[in-house]
Amino acid sequence: MTRVRDLSEEQILERIVPLLPRGSATLLGPGDDAAVLAAPDGRFVVSTDVLVEDRHFRARWSTGYDVGRRAAAQNLADIAAMGARPTGLVTSLVVPGDTELDWVTGFARGLADGCASTGAGAVGGDLSGGPCLVVSITVHGDLEGRSPVLRSGARPGDVVAHAGVRGWSAAGLALLETGLVRVPLSSAPLEVTDGVLLEDEWERLVTAYLRPDPPLAAGVLAGQAGATSMLDLSDGLLRDAGRVARASGVRIDLDAGAFAKDREVLRSAARAVAAATGLGDPGWGPGNADIDGLVGRWIWAGGEDHGLLATFPAGTRLPAGWTAVGQVHAAGQEDDGGEAGPAVTIGGEALDVGPGWDHFRA
Amino acid sequence: MTRVRDLSEEQILERIVPLLPRGSATLLGPGDDAAVLAAPDGRFVVSTDVLVEDRHFRARWSTGYDVGRRAAAQNLADIAAMGARPTGLVTSLVVPGDTELDWVTGFARGLADGCASTGAGAVGGDLSGGPCLVVSITVHGDLEGRSPVLRSGARPGDVVAHAGVRGWSAAGLALLETGLVRVPLSSAPLEVTDGVLLEDEWERLVTAYLRPDPPLAAGVLAGQAGATSMLDLSDGLLRDAGRVARASGVRIDLDAGAFAKDREVLRSAARAVAAATGLGDPGWGPGNADIDGLVGRWIWAGGEDHGLLATFPAGTRLPAGWTAVGQVHAAGQEDDGGEAGPAVTIGGEALDVGPGWDHFRA
Repeated sequence: MTRVRDLSEEQILERIVPLLPRGSATLLGPGDDAAVLAAPDGRFVVSTDVLVEDRHFRARWSTGYDVGRRAAAQNLADIAAMGARPTGLVTSLVVPGDTELDWVTGFARGLADGCASTGAGAVGGDLSGGPCLVVSITVHGDLEGRSPVLRSGARPGDVVAHAGVRGWSAAGLALLETGLVRVPLSSAPLEVTDGVLLEDEWERLVTAYLRPDPPLAAGVLAGQAGATSMLDLSDGLLRDAGRVARASGVRIDLDAGAFAKDREVLRSAARAVAAATGLGDPGWGPGNADIDGLVGRWIWAGGEDHGLLATFPAGTRLPAGWTAVGQVHAAGQEDDGGEAGPAVTIGGEALDVGPGWDHFRA
Repeated sequence: MTRVRDLSEEQILERIVPLLPRGSATLLGPGDDAAVLAAPDGRFVVSTDVLVEDRHFRARWSTGYDVGRRAAAQNLADIAAMGARPTGLVTSLVVPGDTELDWVTGFARGLADGCASTGAGAVGGDLSGGPCLVVSITVHGDLEGRSPVLRSGARPGDVVAHAGVRGWSAAGLALLETGLVRVPLSSAPLEVTDGVLLEDEWERLVTAYLRPDPPLAAGVLAGQAGATSMLDLSDGLLRDAGRVARASGVRIDLDAGAFAKDREVLRSAARAVAAATGLGDPGWGPGNADIDGLVGRWIWAGGEDHGLLATFPAGTRLPAGWTAVGQVHAAGQEDDGGEAGPAVTIGGEALDVGPGWDHFRA
């Protein structure tokens, strides 16, 4: 088994670079002091994100491929959230010397697959030893002549819309933490005791955690359709919606019944996780309220789905991939006290939505 | 004393962001999912570099300020080495929870001072906990309509030229390792026994190691003057010159007497380091050959000065900051064996330049 300490940096790069996408905006790729990327409209969008082992991923669950996919996804989502099209990225990778070379080449393949739908290139990087795995990616995008879609542009009367999956990543993490799904994932679904192929569904949730697949094209479509604000949902819907509300000086009211399809997908996993974690009456196990509470927590507070939240002027025909999930109101308009009301409400109410909510601090 | 674990990420960012330069190319600064930078000629140059504690710096020698300066310098040097003008950078910072907040604000100030001469902005970043300090910076530059200056463009007959200091960083590191200079540096020079203010000179060398100051403007001037190749000298002159020679398919011959001024600066430090490390006859101490050997090693093999090496067509009037240090020849032209000759020679000879060279593997 080859470990990275057995090879020089140049030998490792020789194995990685051929795995990486060149990219359609790349004017000069890896190998010199710097790369050169096209920026056709005279501007470019840039964002950086760092992933640290045991903070943002666990090596016992995530392969190198998974970490590459995740790193690409969460960075590309930041570009999409500006309404921009990703053009290229650079990567700093810190790896302990005893890391298997296969982890590093797997990482490169994951990065490449994460970029595949976008045409973005992996145009440069730096590699170093260190005490734990650290991945820092900087990604760039092209606004194609449009204005960037900021967090601060939501206006009262706008429709709030969502693209991507909701709560899947949090559910997938819970399935791993409770041992209900083990990695590596099997390639064939397993039949469970009641005769329903539930584990296939569960594996989709775990995959959403390990290899998030943000709705990158939906970001560009939102920009083209005149979205007034947008952001990447990385820290949970309520928390991130609060950022838009505060930046825009508005209140966001989310529909209590939104995300019906996601709830349906999450329900069997929530029942199993609730039972495995001892929710409910010791004799009877979790009831519907426990299960609904868990689904609600994943939907409203679950992080790392990397879906997109945007606002559109009332009457906008929502582009493909987007679903209306709420309304923008003037800030504090229904509040008769001295303090401004909550920045985000669900069905007009503050965030008390049943069991489980005590674990969440907005 | 405030440590980073006592504050939220947002609270830390509130202290850092005001310290950072906005930058003249910044269209949208920190605070949204991504920043927007101007790229007036429809392209941009991008490079990334990572610094890991105990690999690239030592926290007992380098303050947060020093690490910020160093991180900015070595990244900006990569942009200058393309003949580009730096426009903006983003930073990923991994800090253990027990790091003092002052380290982080010092880092931000160092980053700002490192950028000050360029007008580049610090437009975004990410902050995470982790087991050791890791700094990853991605920097961008504007070619102002010029072609990027690659490593592969040197042609036989070109003049080889150098900008910046040579060997200072390696000498500064040796002064720290031998305990001849201690940090933090005093603000006033100290008089030594022979009545000469040598330690003032030594502190300049240590400063060159802790806070490299690359000749950034010289990179742009070289691009304007038609440099045929250029690179940032980070791994030692011979090793980096070898990269240009191989990429260009040429041989580079460096003048044996080049860098006379740097040798003069280095000589008193070399004498002291040679004595402190027991070079020379046990009774007599180091002789001139030992001292010259050490100076030679710092000049030819010392890393991290982040000077620039470039080639210019014969007859070019070298721009400000550049000194001729050699010639480009056709590869292997003086070699009568089957193998190609060495890619880099000094005064026409291979790399055997006296004592100390056994420690260097080209």
